[in-house]
This record gives sequence, C-alpha cells and structure tokens, in this order.
Amino acid sequence: MKYIKDIRETDKIQQNFLCRKKELGKKQSGDDYYNLLLIDKTGTIDGKIWNTDNPAIEEFESGDYVYVEGFVKNFNQRLQITINRLRKLKEDEYDPEDFLPSSTQNVGDMYRELMGYIKEVSNPYLSALLNSVFIEDKMTAKAFSEHSAAKSIHHAFRGGLLEHTVSVTRLCRAFADNYKMLNRDLIITAAMLHDIGKLKELSDLPENDYTDEGQLLGHIYMGAEFVGKKIDEIVNFPLKLRNELIHCILAHHGELEFGSPKKPALAEALALSMADNLDAKMETLNELFNTAVDDGWLGFQKNFESNIRKTSGN
Amino acid sequence: MKYIKDIRETDKIQQNFLCRKKELGKKQSGDDYYNLLLIDKTGTIDGKIWNTDNPAIEEFESGDYVYVEGFVKNFNQRLQITINRLRKLKEDEYDPEDFLPSSTQNVGDMYRELMGYIKEVSNPYLSALLNSVFIEDKMTAKAFSEHSAAKSIHHAFRGGLLEHTVSVTRLCRAFADNYKMLNRDLIITAAMLHDIGKLKELSDLPENDYTDEGQLLGHIYMGAEFVGKKIDEIVNFPLKLRNELIHCILAHHGELEFGSPKKPALAEALALSMADNLDAKMETLNELFNTAVDDGWLGFQKNFESNIRKTSGN
Amino acid sequence: MKYIKDIRETDKIQQNFLCRKKELGKKQSGDDYYNLLLIDKTGTIDGKIWNTDNPAIEEFESGDYVYVEGFVKNFNQRLQITINRLRKLKEDEYDPEDFLPSSTQNVGDMYRELMGYIKEVSNPYLSALLNSVFIEDKMTAKAFSEHSAAKSIHHAFRGGLLEHTVSVTRLCRAFADNYKMLNRDLIITAAMLHDIGKLKELSDLPENDYTDEGQLLGHIYMGAEFVGKKIDEIVNFPLKLRNELIHCILAHHGELEFGSPKKPALAEALALSMADNLDAKMETLNELFNTAVDDGWLGFQKNFESNIRKTSGN
Amino acid sequence: MKYIKDIRETDKIQQNFLCRKKELGKKQSGDDYYNLLLIDKTGTIDGKIWNTDNPAIEEFESGDYVYVEGFVKNFNQRLQITINRLRKLKEDEYDPEDFLPSSTQNVGDMYRELMGYIKEVSNPYLSALLNSVFIEDKMTAKAFSEHSAAKSIHHAFRGGLLEHTVSVTRLCRAFADNYKMLNRDLIITAAMLHDIGKLKELSDLPENDYTDEGQLLGHIYMGAEFVGKKIDEIVNFPLKLRNELIHCILAHHGELEFGSPKKPALAEALALSMADNLDAKMETLNELFNTAVDDGWLGFQKNFESNIRKTSGN
Amino acid sequence: MKYIKDIRETDKIQQNFLCRKKELGKKQSGDDYYNLLLIDKTGTIDGKIWNTDNPAIEEFESGDYVYVEGFVKNFNQRLQITINRLRKLKEDEYDPEDFLPSSTQNVGDMYRELMGYIKEVSNPYLSALLNSVFIEDKMTAKAFSEHSAAKSIHHAFRGGLLEHTVSVTRLCRAFADNYKMLNRDLIITAAMLHDIGKLKELSDLPENDYTDEGQLLGHIYMGAEFVGKKIDEIVNFPLKLRNELIHCILAHHGELEFGSPKKPALAEALALSMADNLDAKMETLNELFNTAVDDGWLGFQKNFESNIRKTSGN
Amino acid sequence: MKYIKDIRETDKIQQNFLCRKKELGKKQSGDDYYNLLLIDKTGTIDGKIWNTDNPAIEEFESGDYVYVEGFVKNFNQRLQITINRLRKLKEDEYDPEDFLPSSTQNVGDMYRELMGYIKEVSNPYLSALLNSVFIEDKMTAKAFSEHSAAKSIHHAFRGGLLEHTVSVTRLCRAFADNYKMLNRDLIITAAMLHDIGKLKELSDLPENDYTDEGQLLGHIYMGAEFVGKKIDEIVNFPLKLRNELIHCILAHHGELEFGSPKKPALAEALALSMADNLDAKMETLNELFNTAVDDGWLGFQKNFESNIRKTSGN
Repeated sequence: MKYIKDIRETDKIQQNFLCRKKELGKKQSGDDYYNLLLIDKTGTIDGKIWNTDNPAIEEFESGDYVYVEGFVKNFNQRLQITINRLRKLKEDEYDPEDFLPSSTQNVGDMYRELMGYIKEVSNPYLSALLNSVFIEDKMTAKAFSEHSAAKSIHHAFRGGLLEHTVSVTRLCRAFADNYKMLNRDLIITAAMLHDIGKLKELSDLPENDYTDEGQLLGHIYMGAEFVGKKIDEIVNFPLKLRNELIHCILAHHGELEFGSPKKPALAEALALSMADNLDAKMETLNELFNTAVDDGWLGFQKNFESNIRKTSGN
Repeated sequence: MKYIKDIRETDKIQQNFLCRKKELGKKQSGDDYYNLLLIDKTGTIDGKIWNTDNPAIEEFESGDYVYVEGFVKNFNQRLQITINRLRKLKEDEYDPEDFLPSSTQNVGDMYRELMGYIKEVSNPYLSALLNSVFIEDKMTAKAFSEHSAAKSIHHAFRGGLLEHTVSVTRLCRAFADNYKMLNRDLIITAAMLHDIGKLKELSDLPENDYTDEGQLLGHIYMGAEFVGKKIDEIVNFPLKLRNELIHCILAHHGELEFGSPKKPALAEALALSMADNLDAKMETLNELFNTAVDDGWLGFQKNFESNIRKTSGN
Repeated sequence: MKYIKDIRETDKIQQNFLCRKKELGKKQSGDDYYNLLLIDKTGTIDGKIWNTDNPAIEEFESGDYVYVEGFVKNFNQRLQITINRLRKLKEDEYDPEDFLPSSTQNVGDMYRELMGYIKEVSNPYLSALLNSVFIEDKMTAKAFSEHSAAKSIHHAFRGGLLEHTVSVTRLCRAFADNYKMLNRDLIITAAMLHDIGKLKELSDLPENDYTDEGQLLGHIYMGAEFVGKKIDEIVNFPLKLRNELIHCILAHHGELEFGSPKKPALAEALALSMADNLDAKMETLNELFNTAVDDGWLGFQKNFESNIRKTSGN
Repeated sequence: MKYIKDIRETDKIQQNFLCRKKELGKKQSGDDYYNLLLIDKTGTIDGKIWNTDNPAIEEFESGDYVYVEGFVKNFNQRLQITINRLRKLKEDEYDPEDFLPSSTQNVGDMYRELMGYIKEVSNPYLSALLNSVFIEDKMTAKAFSEHSAAKSIHHAFRGGLLEHTVSVTRLCRAFADNYKMLNRDLIITAAMLHDIGKLKELSDLPENDYTDEGQLLGHIYMGAEFVGKKIDEIVNFPLKLRNELIHCILAHHGELEFGSPKKPALAEALALSMADNLDAKMETLNELFNTAVDDGWLGFQKNFESNIRKTSGN
Repeated sequence: MKYIKDIRETDKIQQNFLCRKKELGKKQSGDDYYNLLLIDKTGTIDGKIWNTDNPAIEEFESGDYVYVEGFVKNFNQRLQITINRLRKLKEDEYDPEDFLPSSTQNVGDMYRELMGYIKEVSNPYLSALLNSVFIEDKMTAKAFSEHSAAKSIHHAFRGGLLEHTVSVTRLCRAFADNYKMLNRDLIITAAMLHDIGKLKELSDLPENDYTDEGQLLGHIYMGAEFVGKKIDEIVNFPLKLRNELIHCILAHHGELEFGSPKKPALAEALALSMADNLDAKMETLNELFNTAVDDGWLGFQKNFESNIRKTSGN
Repeated sequence: MKYIKDIRETDKIQQNFLCRKKELGKKQSGDDYYNLLLIDKTGTIDGKIWNTDNPAIEEFESGDYVYVEGFVKNFNQRLQITINRLRKLKEDEYDPEDFLPSSTQNVGDMYRELMGYIKEVSNPYLSALLNSVFIEDKMTAKAFSEHSAAKSIHHAFRGGLLEHTVSVTRLCRAFADNYKMLNRDLIITAAMLHDIGKLKELSDLPENDYTDEGQLLGHIYMGAEFVGKKIDEIVNFPLKLRNELIHCILAHHGELEFGSPKKPALAEALALSMADNLDAKMETLNELFNTAVDDGWLGFQKNFESNIRKTSGN
C-alpha cells in the first residue's frame, strides 16, 4: 500500500483512504461538487469530486473507507486529488490500522518504558496505585496505549496519550535528578496519571472528538475523580498523600485560566505543570515543522504568539 | 451577658470573651506587651495587655475562653480594651454558643425553607439526591446548618453556608420564573449543592480555616466529587443528568480564573454562577455597611474596584 | 402569507420579502451574480440571482420590499433561494409590519406590566420622573415600545428594548425582595430607565443601525443626559437622589472596560448591572438555541468563551 | 513669613501653618500623642505633639490655621517638627493665600495665554462656546483659574487645572501644526474644555477632595453634560459638531478602562487623549523629581511601572 | 505614464506595472487562473488572468515589471483589471522609481529638515554621533532616505522611515519647548535614531519584508547595538550619556508587551515613546482616511479598538 | 567563629557580623534607636541598639564589619539581638569571605561541570565562543564564578549565577536528550550564556545592587551585546548562527511582558526560556522552604499566586 506521505505532484492515484470529512460545495455556476478530507496513518490530503453526477462515484459517507482513482495537482503549494472514480470498501478489503494517524514511536516499547518507571516507585501506596491502573485494570491499560492525547494540535494520534505521558515522565525524572527537594515517587506517579482523564474526555479513534462528559467535566476533573476512586480501593492509602497526588492532577495545567481549579501549591505539582507545558509546546513545534514545505519562516503562530522557524543546521 | 456590639467608649469591662488571636508585641522601650483579638457572637474587639508581668494576668493561649477586666478607649475611631486582669475560664463557666459569630437569621427557619424547596423538585432522581444529602445523611445535614461559607469577607459565620445557600436558591427560583428556558429542577438542585464542598474545605467554627485538603483540592472539586459519590448510590440516575449537575457545580465560579475548571456551558450553570456572584457581592456590601461608622463614603474597596457608599434614604 | 420560518428545502417560492442586503458577487468565470439577504418578521434567508441579465429581475436596491420567485436548496445545512424572477413592490402591496423581526411577546402586555411597576414606586420624585418619561412624553413612550435593544446578538428586534427592560425590572424586583438593603424605588426606577439612551443610539427599525450620535456618545451617556434633563424639569428633585439615579445608569455595564465611566458604587447600581448582564446572556442563549438545528453542542461561542448546549430534558 | 521649603534640620520653629491632618497616635507605653500634617503654599511637613496634656497646646482641629513653636529633627531623611506650643489663629492673623499649594506659574499669565488661544478659533460656534464658558460665565472663569486638577499625584494645587489645560492646549496646537488632518478649531476647543468637569468633581481648595457628585458621576460625564448645556444655549450650533466635541471630552482618557465610556473615534479625540496623558505623566515626573532628595534612582514607581531617575546633566 | 491612482472604472488599460504578487487560483470548474497584485508608486490594483493558456500572456514571476493590456471593472467597490495581454519588461523599458510606493513629501526637503535639527544639538558627543550616522556614514545616510518604516499599516513606503523620523523629531522638539525638564539634545538625538534598526529589520523596497535577522532580533535591539557601536568609535563619549541614549532607544515602544525590554525610566524616553506612538497612530488614520471611499464610518478598526470616521468639515 | 544559622533564642552574643543596613528609628517617647541588619555567609539577623548614647557603641556605618555583644530574644517567631556593645573591626580582624551569603555548592565543582559541558559542544564556532568567554577571558571567568544571579528572591548569593547557569544547562541537556529536534550545541551554548549580562547588571557582592547601566539597559540587552562582540572577534562565525544564538538570549524570559524584546521563535529559545523559568521557580521554593519555621502552609506567595507548602515525607 502506498501512503499519503509518499504522494507527489502529478501522481496517478489508485488506492484506499479513510474519508474523514465530506462537504458539499457549490460552484458559482450553481452546480455542486464534493470536498473530501482523505486520511491514512501517515497524513491527510484533500480530494475534489467536481462532477457529482459522475456514475463512477458511488454512494459513501464521511467515516467510510473508500477506494479512489484520480490524479494529483499542486494547488498553491498544497496537493489535492481530482477524483474520477470512488467506491466504498467492504470490511474485508481494508485494515483500519492502516488509516489511523499513529505515533511514530513503537507503542510496545513506550509501554515497556512506562512499566519500567513504575518499578522505580518505592512508596508502596503509589506503587500499588500505578499497578492497579496500568497493569491490573486491563481495560484502562489497553485504552491507554491506543488513545490520542488531543482532538487536534499536538499528540492527536493513536498512541499520542502514551507518547506524551512517557515524555512528561522522562522530564519529571530529570527534574527529580536536578532538584533533590522533589519527591521522586510522587512526581513520577503524578506524571504517569496526569492526563488519564483524557481516556473519557475524548472518544476513541478514529472519531477522537470531545465526549458529552468531556465537554461538561473536562479531563482534569475526570482524571482526579478516577484516581480518587482507584486510591479508595487501596487499604490505608495515606490521606495526605491522596490529597497531594490529586492536587498534582488538578493543578497540572499550571494556571487557573488554563482550566486547573487550583494553582500548583507543591513543588511537584509546579514541576509537573511545566513538564506538561514543555512537552505540549515541543510536540506542537515538531508537528509544525514536519508539515512545513520548507525550513523558512512559517508565519505568525497564534499558539506561540510569534513567527516561527526551524533552526538552521537541524 | 453583655455583648461586644454593645460596648461603648469609656466602658468598664468585666466579662467573658473568646480569645481568637494572641500576639506578642514589643514596646520600643524593649518591653513586651500582648495584642489580643477578642470575639463573641456579636463582633470583635482588640485587647491590650501592656504589662506582661502583671500577676493578675493568668496563663492562657489563643483559642481559650477568658474572663477579662479592663476599660475601653477609642483609638482612632476603633475601640480597644486596656486589660488589667484576665483568667482562663473553665468549661462549665461559659457556653461556646455565645462566642460564635452567627447568622442574624434563624437557622431552623432557613433549613425549613430549604426543605420546602426540595419538595418543589419533581425529577425523581434529583429529588432522591437532595433527600439523601440533606435529610438521610444526618451528619451532612447537621454540619450544613452550622458551617460558615468563608474564612473571611462574606458569610464567615455560623449558619453562613446555609444562609448563602438559601439566598442563592431563592435567586435561582426567581430566574427560573423569568426564563422558561431554564430547567427548574436542575438549577434548584445545583443551587442547593453548589457549595457543599465547603463542609470539608473549611474546618468547623470557631477555627474556620482552610483544611489541608481544602487548600490542595478546593471546595469546587470536593463538592463535585461528593455529589458524584452520592449520585452513584442512586439506582439508574441518568448519566447525562449526572454530568449536567456536576458541571453546574464545577462551573459555579463562572470564570476559569476564579477557580472553575470549566466555563458554564449550560444555561443553568451560567445562571447559577451569576446568582452565586450576586449573593457574595450583596452580603459583602451588607457587612461593609454594618461595620461602617457612618453612611458616608467608605474609601476604595478592592473587591469592588471602587469607592462605595450606602444609598441615601436607606 | 407564508413566513420564512416555514420555508423548507425544495419549496417553490412565490412570496414577498424585505431585501436587507444586496451584494454583487462575481463567478470565477468572470460573470457577476447577486447575493441577497431576505427577511421577514420570522427570520432571514439567503437569495442568489445567478444571472444578472435575466430580464425577469427588475431594478431594486437594498431596503426595498420585493416579490420573489424561485426555488429552495439546502447548501451545507443552510437554505437558500435561487431566484428566477424579482420585482419591487409598491407601497400598497405590503404591510411593513410583516417584515420586522419582533418580540414573541405581546407589546401591549409588556407595556402594561411596566406601567404596573411604575405604580409600585412610592418615592414622589422617582414616581414623577417615571410618569414624565413613560406616560407624559408620548413620543418616548411610543418609541420605547417599538425599539430594538441591539443591532444584533440579543433583543435586536421590534419590542426588544421593552422586553429587555421588563425582564431586567422583574429581576431587580426579585433582588429587592431578597436583599432588604436595596432601595426598591431607586433600583426599579433605574432598571426601567437604564437603556433609554438606546432610543437614540440605534436608528428605528428596520434599519436598526448605530446613529452618528450613537457611535460618538453611546447610549450610556445619552441615557444619563436624557434622564438628567427630565429630572431638571421636576421641582425640588433631591440632588443626592439625582446623582444616585444617574450613577446607576452610568454604571450599568458594571465594568469600565464594558463602557461604564464609573464602576458601581452603590448596591443598587451593582445589582442592576448584574441583572442587565444576566438578561443579555440568557436572551443570547435563547436566540442561539432557537436557531440551532438540533439540541447538541453548538461549538465554541465567543460570547461565552465556551462550547454550549441546551440542557437535556428541556 | 518663613516657608516650609526653607525649613532646615535643627531649626527652631515659630511660625504659622495650615493643619491639614490631625491624627491620634498611641505610644506603646499606652499614652497618646498627635501626628500632624502641616502645610503652606510651598510644601508640607510632619508635626508631632508627644505630650497631649501639655497646657501650651490649645484646642484645634484638622483644617485650622495654627501658630506653632518647636524644633526640627531629621527622622530618616525626612524633617519633622517636635511641637512644644500651638494655638489656633484668628481669622485676621493669617492670609489663606499663604497656605495653599499653588502653581509655580503666574495664574494671570496663564489665563491670558488661554484667552489668546480662544481668539485663534475661527469656527463661529466653537468660538461662541469658548466665550460663553471662559469669558461670559464669570463664575466658571474665576473657578477655572483657581481650581486644582487632581486630589493628589499631579496638578493637585491652586491653578493646577489651568496649568494643565494650558499645557494640553499647547500640545494640541503643536499636533495641529504637524498633522494637517486635524481640525484645529475642534481640537483646541476640546483641549480647553476637556477637564472642565473637575470644577465640580473636586471641592475647592484647600479641601480639594472628591465631592459626592464627583464620586458618583465623575468629571468626564459632568464635563460633557456641562458643555452640552452650554452648547444648547447657542443658536444653530451644528448637531454633528456638538457630537464631535462631546465625543472628544468623553474619550479623553483614551481607554475604556481609564473611565472613558467611548474609545477615541476621531483623530482629534485620539490626539487630545495622548496630549492629556503626556501632560499628566510629565507633571508627575516633575513633581517626583522636585521632591526627591537627590538625582539618583527614586525606586520603583507604580505609576510608571519602573524605577525612575532624573537624566544626567539636567 | 498613467498612474494607478488615476485609473477609473471601465478604463481600457495599456500600461506598465510592478507585479508584487502572483497567485494561482482555481475556478471551481477545475480550471486555473492567476490573481495578481499590481503596483506603482501611487497605489495598488488587482489583476485577473482568467485564461492561463492565453498565448498573449507571456512568462513572468512575482517581482517582475510587466506591460499589461486589459479593461477595468468595479467589483464590490474595488477596481480590478481583467488582463488579456501581458509581457515582462526589459530593464531599459521602465524606471523602477515609478513603481515604488513613496512618501508624498519630498525626500530631499525632509532630509534637509533633519540636518537642520542636527545643527541644533549642542552637546558635542551627541552632535558627533549624529554626524557620524547621518553625514559621514554615506551608506546609512542614503539608506535612511529611502527605507520604509514598516512592512504594512503605516509608513510602509519609500521615505517612510525618514518621514516618520522627521515627524517624531518635530514632536519631541515641541515637547522640549513645553517641558523645561527635558534634555533637548538627548531627546532630539534619540528621536532621530530611535528607528534606525529598521534599516536592517526590513529588507529594501520593493521587497520590504522582515529579514531573518529582523525576525530574530528586532529593530529595537538592532538599533541599540548599531548606535552602541557608533558611540564606541567616539573618543570619551560619556558612559552615562551612552546608557541614557541607548535606554531611550530600547524603551521607545513604551511598554514591555510592545517589545521594549525596558519601560521608560527617563523623562526623555517616556516622551519619545509617546511621540512615536502618536505619529504611528496619526499616520495610520491618515492612510485609512485616504483609502476610504467616503467620509462616513469605516467600521471597527482593530488597531484603534473602535469604529472610526473622519471629522466633519475636514 | 559561630554562624548566624546556629544562633538560638536566649544565646549570649560575642561575635562579628557585616552590618548590611543601619536605620535610625524613633521610640515614641521621642528617643532614637538603631535598627540593624546583620549578616554573615549563613544568614541574616536583626539587631537593635535601644540606647544610642551608650558609650559602648562606637561609630560605624552600614557596610562596616562589626564586633557585637548582646543577647538574643525571640520576637514573634523571629530572632533579634539586643546590642549592648559594638565596635567597628579593623581590616585584619575579619575575613570578608565569612560574611558573604554563598552557594551551598562548591564553586570549583560547579565550574568544572560547566567546563565539561563546553567540551560536549562540537560546533567549532560555538565551541570557540564558549572558550573565549569562559576560559580565555580570565576576568569574565572569575567574575562568573562569584557573581550573584539576583538582587533578592532567588540565587542572590555568591556563586548564584554559576549555580543557576549550571542547573539550567543540565535541564537543557535533558531536553536535548528528549527532543531530537533540538540543536544540542546551540541550546547548551545559549544556556551557558543566557544570563551573562548579569555580570554588569548587578554590582559585585556584598553590594549586589542594580548598576545604573543595569537599570537602564537590563541584563538581556547587555548580555546579547556582550555575546555579539565576542562573536565578532571570531573569524567566519556564521551570521545565521549568530542571530540564532543572540535570539536565544533576547528571548530567554519567554514573554514580552517579562522583558524579552522578542518571543521565542526557535525551539531552542523556547526550551531555554522554560528551563530558566523552572530553575528560578524551584530555587525560590527551595529558599522559601529553607527559611520556613516548619513544614506547614507558608501563606499566600505572590510569586506563585498560591499558598504553598512542602510536600509531606520530604
């Protein structure tokens, strides 16, 4: 199978896609056309069906897996497929795996790395908690490997939650190395659990959209409540430690205006919030640079309140 | 018993107080003195022990109930007691009731009013929830009648939480009368429960200070989690309704920067947040006007970003 | 007459509209077309004239009442009329009443309700003032019943100013019930007069746009000046009361950054500003929900800094 | 008469002052003392009466003119008078002129300069307006020469309003020279009238405090209303010009959050707001430098959000 | 040569332009077209090539000087040229001077005015500095006469930097006249040099875009560093004066959030920042009014946070 | 020598201090006293001279090293020395080393660690730059080891600049390990040089106050200019790399409002700004916890906009 990342200008297309969006457009002649967003696990590309009466275009909806024939044009530095033929695929004609945007890193490796960090936690209560969430609770463990960490912008792909969690945990370990003041067990546990509420805030891929519950309650509250329930199943879990850990989760956005109901009041909560922020920013830059056509200035980026470019020699 | 609100300049004092604060001061001659904050249920007054070696001053600590002799002076428009004699009271010499700042309204009446509003709720799940919290859960019901709603500023007295809750509920009923769009059962239930997390955020009177848990988690999270647990004990409570109610609690501060992890996304959550805000502001004004020496301008009030005065003819 | 709110996809159209906007578009073939906004008292719909040389399209301008023939299409969930024939109506062919967006409530009923509130005001000076504005000043009284309260967003329809004023007055009465501290006569008077400056800030319907004076001075200043002049015609109106009432008008946006030159410095001014804010928000939600295609999430709403949805079971 | 600006450390004092403030202090021995603020037209100095039972200290109140005997000490780089004798002056014993902080510029000269600018205005309506305010309205003209322009900070002295007005008018003339786009008559008229509301916002010197009306309505509204009334007495004053001029007054604080109910919408309003801002800042710096003990850094100045110092070689 | 400012609707075009932008568009029929931005020294106009296969359209790129034939249409109050024929000009067929947007003022006159101000500076070190930059450094002097002062918005034309600098210097001279406290030599020198970093922040016209260095370092830093180097070539230039002058350059945006690394700490720095701000705002208004189709309200202008209109009678 | 950190309540004092501050106070009896701030390298303590006429108190000034006799009292949880005898030390009676607050880490070790990081830099230009600053420029190298990194708050002690620089460099190395996108040589070089401007922004210890130049220009500009000059001495240093490195220094405060004239536009600049921020916050917490009397809540900390406490079990 040829992937979107390998499509080039003037290519002739004869391959499968997941159709993520299907919008009706209208030519100003008054005629309709369709504007599609086609994806596979390596990227996205626009598709255009200029003639909606074309008998070679079969019935399909957004969300369907489709076979497409057409050719590629460069329209203002962006590729698009002019589609001549399209049909909906049967379930046995495709592997959904091929159409999910996914982490470029190996999910198994990342999960093993995470398991390694659990073993570093010596506090018996925190250790028990991490085991109960990431090992004994099979459903959570499985979901955690596959979930995205965002609807869009950064880590919005399969394994994104895991990739982000591993990266934040690595940073927090480095912080604990540098600052003896930090309680290593607490910050590592908090790092691993900080975004666990996203399992229910965002629906599963490929939909990957906010759930009703996610809109109303948010992953910060949901994660804290989830961890609270898990803790309550552990005998004699110290109340003070419970409050400190849940505080780290509540405060991990760092600022009230970013949705944390409490500002960080503990060194670990503060350091975790900065690791989370750094990782989100670095991955956002990474995705920006990866989709850029060249290494020049990318124009004003609202997220960074600045024009941005890749560093020379990188 | 004579109350603080009745003390006047040049009075001779021979009565009991609760000593809320005891601080060591130092005269610039190098000698020590004590600065006390004395309270009873009607107010507060400063006390000074200029001679710490006075044998008529017995051992006591902040938090003790004490008998005091002395005389009253006006120091820059503020009364203070110069103390000549002081002794710690025995438990049978005072009634703690007399020393708690309290709502000026009758607690029983207010609770009955609240019970009346519960009866208005026709949704069986919300009705069951209110019954479980305010009637079946005796400890919560009792605590709810007595708790303060704040450490300072507004409703920081016995019955304050109840008084504030009743007032907000009244406002929300009026809003539901005026806006047919509002789900009356939902907004009334949310109004009654919105500050229930304060039972654990603030310690009991007379201490009335933030608990460790309160500092780390805050009453918004704690209230939402408490209500969530109560709901989970009710069979078949609809998930959508659960999320909507908890959303109202999470969003009741109206703005992220005021500690709500979610902005109001439902009409009821928005209206509740405005009722809560209005009641806090009105009671703050009320307390300001009550403690003012006259009806003139009170000077710049940071809470209101304005100089403030009582309206003429009121 | 068939109304816009009853138009459905694929309908054939043969009816009258007010043409609110007429813009020249250009097809990318280089040919022109016209893009119209057609309204009646029940709503708005787009119209397209693809062929500008069509002899069945007569001369007309934005602001004209027109008869239209065509058919309805659904273009991305939004209806539009492809127009084949259009002619300007003569004055005796239509009733302007049918083309003005209007309050869904009865103007007469609302005005009578307002008159009832005037009778509740016992302060003779405030009573005299309200009578002079709403009863003796026939022109103001009439204009007040018909005016819109906004150019767009909320209450931007005939009777909107009256509807908003009645609703804010109801809220202020409820506040006065709940807070004995409030001067009932003052807050009711201020509620009735707070937006009176809008009579001159916005031109009459159907134009309903900012006047030159409205742009330069704003309804807050204009309303205060208007009320000041009316007061000056009343013998012995107390100066302090004059200043308090005008202050309530000046401060009714609650914050300097919302255009009030003074922050609320009186309890009534503060409560009024919150009633005004609540009513604007509730009506905005109401209009959002009424125009929504379903009861799901409506997407991020800038006014509320949140995604919004209708509450379930409403 | 010796002036405060000439008092030096260790001087013996035998002279008259206006007592601006009289506060009761308490030594920590429990004894009372008085803390005074003494002023004359050249400055202010602290006074201390350590022994309140001293028979040489006669009865007096804040606001009285007093004769004082004592000696000067330097207390942490600030002079203060230890007072041994004090008596209230009779009305014929002092000239209030000597005790009012005043502009260092000649009031007559400044007023003549202002009159000169009126003559430059050729628009007959604006010319008539300026004449009616500054020449025909004797009371306003007189008050305008004597009033302060602020309660504290900048131009808080006799002639301060005039000095500020002349300076802002000069700047606006320079702006009109530099920018042909500016309507010279309009901006000069607006400059002369922009702060006229201060005549009623602040009480007369020596009190110089906010009036009740000033607190509730503010000089921006009061000035606009005053000018509006003056305009309404001029036959055929063009409405558009009236609105433009009043807009300039309303918008002269430049930002909503500084109390202007409208942002500048005309070039003249914008330029005037910047002239007003510049003059306030320059005079604030001037007063800071004049009261500084040396030319070094003055420490963080909240008004300027910066540490500040005088430029070298000035 | 006919200029863009003289082109009218329905004109037939046969003239030269500089093509500033050339973008590929796509008609919804699927065919391509070109969208051009054509400029000369008097303005800009859109051009459309509907048929990209037209043999009368020769090869050209953005940045080329071209001869164009076509006709003018009014498209929604904006003129555009439908192009039938186009060819690239040879170097000897045009004078680049004719195609650069330029100051409406005479560059020579402005430079002479600036030279005059240099002669007013009596401080020998500042005088030497100005001579070294504006007279001895021929390259800088020449570039300074021709450079633009902005990429867009205000002074984005040839001579713009000079025009802005002269205007700010005039304002600062007026400020020095009005405020004796200001060090005239310092503020005049700072005014002349404040934007000198723009020579390297923006590339030369006609490109006039941010350089890589400009994006990374900004004209504030670059100007300060440039002036610092020039100063270091002057023997015995006083260190304190060096720091004061460079401070004025660093602080000339007035606020940290506008890119000054230091808030103004000297009176001259503060006054300069306000002159710079005023001149930018006035020229922005000027350009807005010049390009407006009439004298009415121009709609909300984000730069001014207000709707804006020209003053009547101007 | 006994150190301040070892002083306990009721101790008798006979030892040397550096007198950092000497202020005249006045007892309310009218008599003077002196208030001293005494320091040594382990901390600070207050001193009081109640009798200024005491012949056992010799002449001395702030900045002198002094021998003190007296006794220690606990005044509201803070120790202070009542001083009976004091004399100024001669130069040979003390070692200034003993009186400078210093890093708790070994300066030599830290400098060696920094040298190790220089060796990791493989880019020849960056390597040459680091060598020229930290090795060849002996004066800078020496000053860098001893300088403080702040006037107060965090790292305000000898070796503070070095300690902060090493810590930030460690963090940046960890970031480079975690994010392959980062140019390791650039971020390490920028980390080492980011605060080098502090060498001239703050005067040497023990004064450690802002220099005139520091106030006017700030360490961000001064550091960038210093590095620019050092680069200009290196042959063929690539311009693009120069601009990138200086950008990292200019942008290292992360936000314009924190004094960076440019927001981070490169990944390395962004990551460096977050490392700098994290290190400042962690060290501030560390100093807060070290000076706290117990492990409980420390009260609202403005820097963190939160109440703060040490984590349990740390």
